[in-house]
Parts: sequence; structure tokens; C-alpha cells
Amino acid sequence: MYTDLNTPERILLGPGPSMVHPRVLRAMAHPLLGHLDPEFITLMNEVQDLLRYVFQTENPITFPVSGTGSASMESAVANLLEPGDSILIGVNGYFGERLCNMAGRYGATVRRLERPWGQIFDVQEIDAALRQKPAKVVALVHAETSTGALQPLEGMAEVIHKHGGLLLVDCVTSLGGVPVKIDEWDIDIAYSGTQKCLSCPPGLGPLTVGERAREAIRRRKTQVANWYLDLTMIESYWGKERTYHHTAPITMNFALREALRLVQEEGLEARFERHRANSALLWQGLADLGLDLIVPVAHRLPTLTTVSVPDEVDEAVLRRRLLDEYNIEVAGGLGAFKGKAWRIGLMGYSSRRESVTLLISALSRLIKETR
Amino acid sequence: MYTDLNTPERILLGPGPSMVHPRVLRAMAHPLLGHLDPEFITLMNEVQDLLRYVFQTENPITFPVSGTGSASMESAVANLLEPGDSILIGVNGYFGERLCNMAGRYGATVRRLERPWGQIFDVQEIDAALRQKPAKVVALVHAETSTGALQPLEGMAEVIHKHGGLLLVDCVTSLGGVPVKIDEWDIDIAYSGTQKCLSCPPGLGPLTVGERAREAIRRRKTQVANWYLDLTMIESYWGKERTYHHTAPITMNFALREALRLVQEEGLEARFERHRANSALLWQGLADLGLDLIVPVAHRLPTLTTVSVPDEVDEAVLRRRLLDEYNIEVAGGLGAFKGKAWRIGLMGYSSRRESVTLLISALSRLIKETR
Repeated sequence: MYTDLNTPERILLGPGPSMVHPRVLRAMAHPLLGHLDPEFITLMNEVQDLLRYVFQTENPITFPVSGTGSASMESAVANLLEPGDSILIGVNGYFGERLCNMAGRYGATVRRLERPWGQIFDVQEIDAALRQKPAKVVALVHAETSTGALQPLEGMAEVIHKHGGLLLVDCVTSLGGVPVKIDEWDIDIAYSGTQKCLSCPPGLGPLTVGERAREAIRRRKTQVANWYLDLTMIESYWGKERTYHHTAPITMNFALREALRLVQEEGLEARFERHRANSALLWQGLADLGLDLIVPVAHRLPTLTTVSVPDEVDEAVLRRRLLDEYNIEVAGGLGAFKGKAWRIGLMGYSSRRESVTLLISALSRLIKETR
Repeated sequence: MYTDLNTPERILLGPGPSMVHPRVLRAMAHPLLGHLDPEFITLMNEVQDLLRYVFQTENPITFPVSGTGSASMESAVANLLEPGDSILIGVNGYFGERLCNMAGRYGATVRRLERPWGQIFDVQEIDAALRQKPAKVVALVHAETSTGALQPLEGMAEVIHKHGGLLLVDCVTSLGGVPVKIDEWDIDIAYSGTQKCLSCPPGLGPLTVGERAREAIRRRKTQVANWYLDLTMIESYWGKERTYHHTAPITMNFALREALRLVQEEGLEARFERHRANSALLWQGLADLGLDLIVPVAHRLPTLTTVSVPDEVDEAVLRRRLLDEYNIEVAGGLGAFKGKAWRIGLMGYSSRRESVTLLISALSRLIKETR
């Protein structure tokens, strides 16, 4: 027999999941509804409205995919691409790599536009790449969770649309923490996860689909090669018809509604400012400890910071001590940054002055003990 | 601004989701852990052990897919099948149809073995069909949620293995409510959902994969055509390596652990007996009201009952009155049974004497008022 759930209360300062507000936790203890109950259908409408608010869009097809952020990523890829389609993917970190892997599985011809980890792309090089050879879809990662780089998106869609392409954007680590202006930036399809800057547990993947992308999906010659994520069917469940497709994760939707209500109550601008202020505090604290930040400040994400691990420090050992002795979770590097960097997330409810202050104090003490 | 979550407390007697025990609801309010936290990894092991208990299997690859039951269904299909593979699917209801649709999307040659809705297949006809033409995979639905028929599985695997095939079984509406003996019946791959007889909110899809199926996946010539559900990668996250693939829905795993603990505390045999006793009470009550049960008692599911709607009754109107006046949810028919049947689920925590008694009283009154 197993005991009662009895895990320590962690201070989650990694790349997600972030901490969850007590109101969101309470919402999950709410008794269940059926997935076709009129009361749940009202709630689905509210969740969609609130998601449109954070995505800054009027897109009718805006809803949470019934899986984690990776599922919403695959949903965007699977619905837009069919065998033989071309996609140009900006690869400057782990999640660009993953997009290449996924797109290949759907039979697309994948072209990689590469930059070293931590760097970003500019409009001119996207334009040049498309002039050389057009692509049906161009994919960019707005906030690279593996590097902490923020990819500017202003002007990207204009260039991509000029060449007849669609712009797909990964907003997993930006939505709710830094501005994501789907309509103003004319992004065609974008996805995110709930467990980052929205501070809701993992399990849903917000997705928004603009009219150009919907038209591309309507014009497909083949069926979407993925039943669970097929938007042509799911839009009947989340749209007016309310046709059964699969059972939505009811409780996760209760949680997301509450998390989005918290975003709305705070207001997007105030929320972005809070993320900026706390990351500034973190960056100053890390600099004071003599640590180097990997991404230049001009395109550094306020929601996720990568910092170089000093040569004399074993990153995994120190990270484990932070967890065991202080209950603080930060993450190690992925891929090119493995063993060389820590990733510190200040997202949603985790972006608090007290968390930053505690982390800097704990890091300072542990590094001193190592030296 | 939206109000606090304020939905009515429903008595869920449809085909799922079923009601959730207060202990499971409380577990969801537990503070989050990171998905690579050693404490969460311990919890993953516990969830896997507990799932092996309800699946009655020793299969190492037994874990909850990070999506609803439909995702675990697609996981089984996507991993076993590659373009050109053959699959024989028993179609006697909605979920057999769905399996055909999914298998087609992965490029398989689909052969349908059909029976009218509500009937079941016998070993001889599977044998005959495979003698006529072998298939890499044979798929059967153990508990057809659309009809309420229970498909016996004893002896099926022997015949299928004799012809060199693999047995894939849908246990969505059986797992935790009626015996599912993966090892004794020699089933190669089986999946379920959490929101039926396990009485956990929807959002995870338990899956178990036997050695024959693993070997078939190892021998694939092509990559699994689905990144999110690719078992060759996911088994490294749920297995010994603990390699990051996607962020597991942490809170849903807290809930599933608690729901499975409740199953273990009750004991499988006692749990099955409770489901049998309460369904017997329901069947007697429905018969006393002069209503006809669609599936013969010999292969009628104790977890889901289909009942014919009397000619003079508008099924949707009465169903809506049950919901509005009594807070009771039952479901209408799908497909062939649309407008003609109600589907009444007594699954997990919903399988209680008081629920049956209330439902029969309410139905009795509403039908009288209609006549």
C-alpha cells in the first residue's frame, strides 16, 4: 500500500512547470462536470475568450489542445503540413530542432535556417532564404526555452506572406509573460503550454489559428495524419456544433480558466512589467555573484535566463543541493548547453521578488562553499 | 471579468467522465513538482506499479499517456502500424469505427470484421478471418462504450498469435470496473482512459505494452509517424533513463495515483463485485419501469448500460430534464443508437446504490409525466 501524497513544497524556478497560484489549485478540487454539459460548454467559451485576451487575437479558433505544450506544437505542425509540403525552420535551440523532427514525421521537406544557440534571426535573412526558395510554412520560436533568447517577430509575417508562406510561432515560454501580439504581428498559427507563464499545471496546450492557416487546412489534399489533433474535427467540438470528438480534460480546463482569470485581473501590461522587473533583479543579482549571462540583454527573455556555470562548480551537484537544501528547482542546460549552464525561470506566479532574493542568497552561499 | 467557478454538483451517470472521489479532488490541489524532480520520479514509479495492478500485468512498459483515452488509443495504433501494415478491426460500435479511421491515417490496410451494434465476436470468426488473410494486428474493443457490450477475450490471443498477429485491445470502459487480465489473456497492447472506471478526471490514458508488441515496435522500418506519442522516446522518460521528452501532466498524475490507491484499497475483486451488484440493481429497476435493455445479459457490461427509449418519449428532452431538475447526467445514443437509446454508466465512484436508486426514482417520475 502506498502512503498519502506527501511531497515537499518546491519553489519552481526552472523552465516550467512554474508555481501555481492557490486559487488555481483550489479550482482543480472542484467537482467534475460532463464534457458535453451545458455548464461545461459555457466554461469552454469563457476559456476561449480569456485565451484570446492573452494571445491578443480575435481568432475564432483559439482553444487549449488536450495535451501538453508538445501536443499543441504537434497540432500546429500536423494540421498545416502534408507530405511534400515545404517548411523553413529557424533552428537556434532545442525547440527549433524538435520542430524539424516533427515536421519530418509528417512528410514535409524540412529546410533548416541555423544560428548558434542563444542567437536570433532577423527579417532580412528570412526574406533572403525565402527569395532563394519559398516555403509553405516558416516556423520560429518566440521564446527559446533552451537558450533564453527572445525572437522579435515584428515585420516577420509581412515578409513571409509576401513570399506566399504562413508564419508558425512557438510561444510556449512567452505567452502571459512577454507580449504576444497575434493579430498585430499577423501570425498565422501559434501555440503555447499552460505550465509556463500562465502558471497553470501542465496538461493543456493553448493554440490559436488565423484565417490564412484555416484556409490552408481547408485546402489540404490529404486527411490530417493525426486523429487526436485533427483540427477539422476538434473545431466542431470547440466551435458552434459541439460535436463530440474526445473527452476534454475537464479539471485542467477548470484550472486554466482560473489561471487566465488571474492574468486578466492583473492585466497584461502590469504582468509583463512584473516579469521585466523581477528578471532585472535576477540579472543584477547574478552579475553581483560574478556569473555570466549567456544571452545579450538586447534579446534576453525576462521569463527564462541562462547563466554560465563557473568552471570550478559541478552544475548538477550544486543544482541538487539547491533542491535538497532549499527546495528550489532550477534546470541544467539542454543540448549545446548541457553541463555548462543553468536555466532559471521566472514565470507567472514564480516571478516574485521573494523568489529572486531567496535564489540569489542560496546560490551565493552554495557557490562560496564550493570555491 | 468572469465570476468564481460556480457550476452545479452533478451526479455523473453517463459514459464518462464518472464521479471523482473527494480524496482524488484533494490530491489535485497538492502543490506542483517539476517533471524531473526525484520526488516526481518516485511518484511515476508508484503510478506505474499501481497501473500494473489494475491491468493485472507485469509489463514494464505500463504508464499513463499524456492525453485522454483517445490519445492512448492513437498511441497504440501509431506505434504498432506503419504504412502498408495490415490490421483487422472488429467493428460493432462507435469505437471500432474510430480505430478504423485512426489506422487509416497511419497508412495501414484496414480490414473490417463487422457485427451489428451491440453484438460481439467469437474466437472462431477471428480464426476464420485470419485464415482467409493474416493481419499484423487484430483490434478488439473490450467494452464498447457506444453499445454496452462486453467482448470476451479468453482464447483470442492464442488464435491471433497462431496466425502471427498481435492483439490490440480497447479497455477504456472496462479497466477497473470488470476484469482486465492482460497477462493471463496474453494481450499484446491495451489502453484505457482515467475518467471511466478509475474515477479520475479525464486527461491521462493508461497504456500497457507487452514484449511481442515492443519487439514489433523495435522492428519498425520507419519512424513512428507521431512525435508526441512515440513510445520509442517516451519509454526513456517513463523507463530507467528518465530522459526528458515532454512535460508530464503532473497534477493529473497526482490524481491518478490517488484514484489507483483507492482501487488498491478496495481490492479488484471487491470492486468488480460492487460494479456487478449495482448494475443488477439498475437492470431490475429499468425492467420494472418497462424499459428494454439493448444488450443481452450474457454479454452486457456492468459498467455501461444501453436502454431503449420508449416511443412516446423524446429522449433529449427527458435527458435534459434529468440534468436540470435532478442534476443527473446520462447520455444519449451515438451513431446507430442516436435518438433511440440512453447510455447509463455506473463506473468507479459513480457505481453506488444511492445513485441507482435516485436515477430510477427520477426516471420513473419523468416518464410518468411524459405519458
